[in-house]
Amino acid sequence: MHENSMKSYNVTPWSVEGEVDYDKLVRQFGTKYIDDNILEYFRKFTGEINFFVRRNFFFCHRDLDWIFKKYEEGEKFYLYTGRGPSGKVHIGHLLPWFFTKYLQDKFSVPLLFQVTDDEKFLYRDELSLLNVESMTYDNLLDIVAVGFDHEKTQILIDTKGIKELYRIAIKIAKSITLSTIKAVFGFTDSTNIGMIFFPSIQAAPCFLYSEMLGKRVPCLIPAAIDQDNFWRMTRDVAEKLGYYKPAQIHSKFLPALGKEGKMSSSLPETAIYTTDSPEDVRRKVKNAFTGGQPTVEEQRKRGGNPYICPVYFYEQYFFEKDDKKLEEIRQDCLSGKLLCGEHKNGLATKIVAFLTDFQSKREKAKNVVEKYLFDPQRKVFL
Amino acid sequence: MHENSMKSYNVTPWSVEGEVDYDKLVRQFGTKYIDDNILEYFRKFTGEINFFVRRNFFFCHRDLDWIFKKYEEGEKFYLYTGRGPSGKVHIGHLLPWFFTKYLQDKFSVPLLFQVTDDEKFLYRDELSLLNVESMTYDNLLDIVAVGFDHEKTQILIDTKGIKELYRIAIKIAKSITLSTIKAVFGFTDSTNIGMIFFPSIQAAPCFLYSEMLGKRVPCLIPAAIDQDNFWRMTRDVAEKLGYYKPAQIHSKFLPALGKEGKMSSSLPETAIYTTDSPEDVRRKVKNAFTGGQPTVEEQRKRGGNPYICPVYFYEQYFFEKDDKKLEEIRQDCLSGKLLCGEHKNGLATKIVAFLTDFQSKREKAKNVVEKYLFDPQRKVFL
Repeated sequence: MHENSMKSYNVTPWSVEGEVDYDKLVRQFGTKYIDDNILEYFRKFTGEINFFVRRNFFFCHRDLDWIFKKYEEGEKFYLYTGRGPSGKVHIGHLLPWFFTKYLQDKFSVPLLFQVTDDEKFLYRDELSLLNVESMTYDNLLDIVAVGFDHEKTQILIDTKGIKELYRIAIKIAKSITLSTIKAVFGFTDSTNIGMIFFPSIQAAPCFLYSEMLGKRVPCLIPAAIDQDNFWRMTRDVAEKLGYYKPAQIHSKFLPALGKEGKMSSSLPETAIYTTDSPEDVRRKVKNAFTGGQPTVEEQRKRGGNPYICPVYFYEQYFFEKDDKKLEEIRQDCLSGKLLCGEHKNGLATKIVAFLTDFQSKREKAKNVVEKYLFDPQRKVFL
Repeated sequence: MHENSMKSYNVTPWSVEGEVDYDKLVRQFGTKYIDDNILEYFRKFTGEINFFVRRNFFFCHRDLDWIFKKYEEGEKFYLYTGRGPSGKVHIGHLLPWFFTKYLQDKFSVPLLFQVTDDEKFLYRDELSLLNVESMTYDNLLDIVAVGFDHEKTQILIDTKGIKELYRIAIKIAKSITLSTIKAVFGFTDSTNIGMIFFPSIQAAPCFLYSEMLGKRVPCLIPAAIDQDNFWRMTRDVAEKLGYYKPAQIHSKFLPALGKEGKMSSSLPETAIYTTDSPEDVRRKVKNAFTGGQPTVEEQRKRGGNPYICPVYFYEQYFFEKDDKKLEEIRQDCLSGKLLCGEHKNGLATKIVAFLTDFQSKREKAKNVVEKYLFDPQRKVFL
């Protein structure tokens, strides 16, 4: 169905390569940019335009207007996002989770957080189930440290919560042929049969609360755009199965500190992990690619290019919350007033401050992580 | 891998068509006939040759000699068989279960009985999950009525016991590519992705007690030969995953009362259901195809042909336990002394007597069915 888009862009749930052209993704995936209508809804319900939307990090959607309309009419949605625990969590993973927490707080809605340990085991040859389970526990600390309201949040680990998912997953699976799944995900004859079935497992949470409450419940998925294949597939079968189509709000990727591409766990020196020490952070930022000139003289004369610069992107998408200060940074970069070395020092200091706080929350998470785990008896729709 | 065999014989887990050539199946599936060595083991451990083996209903195997050797050395196996609850249980389904009960009693071993409600839901377009669940309960009564020792038996319904199966199933699934599964089962691009994954779920019980006991446990599967695709696939991955290969003892099919083929729930007048009334039984047997001649005169003169006759097969495989009496029936049929009408009356009486007893056990099963259900905490290896 969407095979061409997969081939030309290299943005799939399992790999994002090259410089991502978000405009093309929007066209090819058939999503909509966030427009004035959506912004108006945000202003109405939250009294503001959230940082991640304002900075264009969450930039497109499907049916978000419908979600807001339902909400206006008194029909509460729930949030659904997730994590594949194949390695340590880096800052790029955190951004959509912070936005998800923001939505949970502002709209006072439940969150279903799926941890796809099965997917990562199935996808990565080198990982055993024990490896993935150890990573799962590690990642849970990051998820909990984000600060979700535990009374409204359920973290569902696939291999642990499979009983609730499986009934829904086989309904979905029954509606999807092999030829469809191959086209949507680019699977081939050498793909293992667990991966072939897995999209049904990632689709199931879109309908889980509808099943549990015995009525259709709107679902909004805040996530990076690389997960979109799952949602297109899910939306195609939703109505046939008697559910609402899940809505999405899509983010971009936080770039890696290297020259291009998404921050990746496979290139550890280009990613800032939540467990990095201040020394790690300073070293990685110091070695980052920038939009600067080869020499100080040239930089002073011609200025830098913030639009290709991960150091600038980190400010824009996360670390400089003040719009005026960000604008100063941009101007000083463009004019050559701000040298890359200085800028890197400034950013590293902000990251270290953030991580110091986050790591302390991560430690505290060890004591409360159990409270978040999925339990079908625990009511989150209050 | 075995695509050709599937195409030429029409014996797959989901369809058995035409007159089955068991000799060809043995060659093509690569199983072994039950030989003197196996019979010697049976005599040694059970003091006899069981009816179903003696009558050649259970007729071939894989690694049964290995299972016996392990048993001799003190390493107990467990039995694993199952049922796909797509409709009512007929007599043809019961035969392997009675043999399984016999093995359980004689060897004093646990039995894991899988009910593949997921498979039937996925395979049959017209069935909803609710349909399958209602059939599941109905079929459970038949399974329990067979009289398995509940202290040594666990009935695992896939959608209920999926948590225990799924971890093992994804290990299996990770080792099986799409091209392998297509070859083994004849799946095509229009097969749904649930069916593609399902063989991992049917394979998982082969390793479940190994996982639960933390050591390799031999597994013996008594079942009809149409399930063999699952076991070939399972055996191919077993050692790689650190388990023993499951062993099998295969049965033939009890023929339908019509002209050819396995007894089928889709042709209700050619199958004797466990819930049939005496009138149902007499009507169905009366209308059965036989190996007789068109007229009484010809029958008296030329005799009948028991070797193509379902009425005779029912005696041979189930209802005439006395070898001498069976031989009399055979001779009287061949000589023309026994007419088909008389023979049908005799068989119907035996079936009615059997069902009267079975239906009373089936009623009593309603009170004890819960005791059999799979519970990971309940120990069956005593």
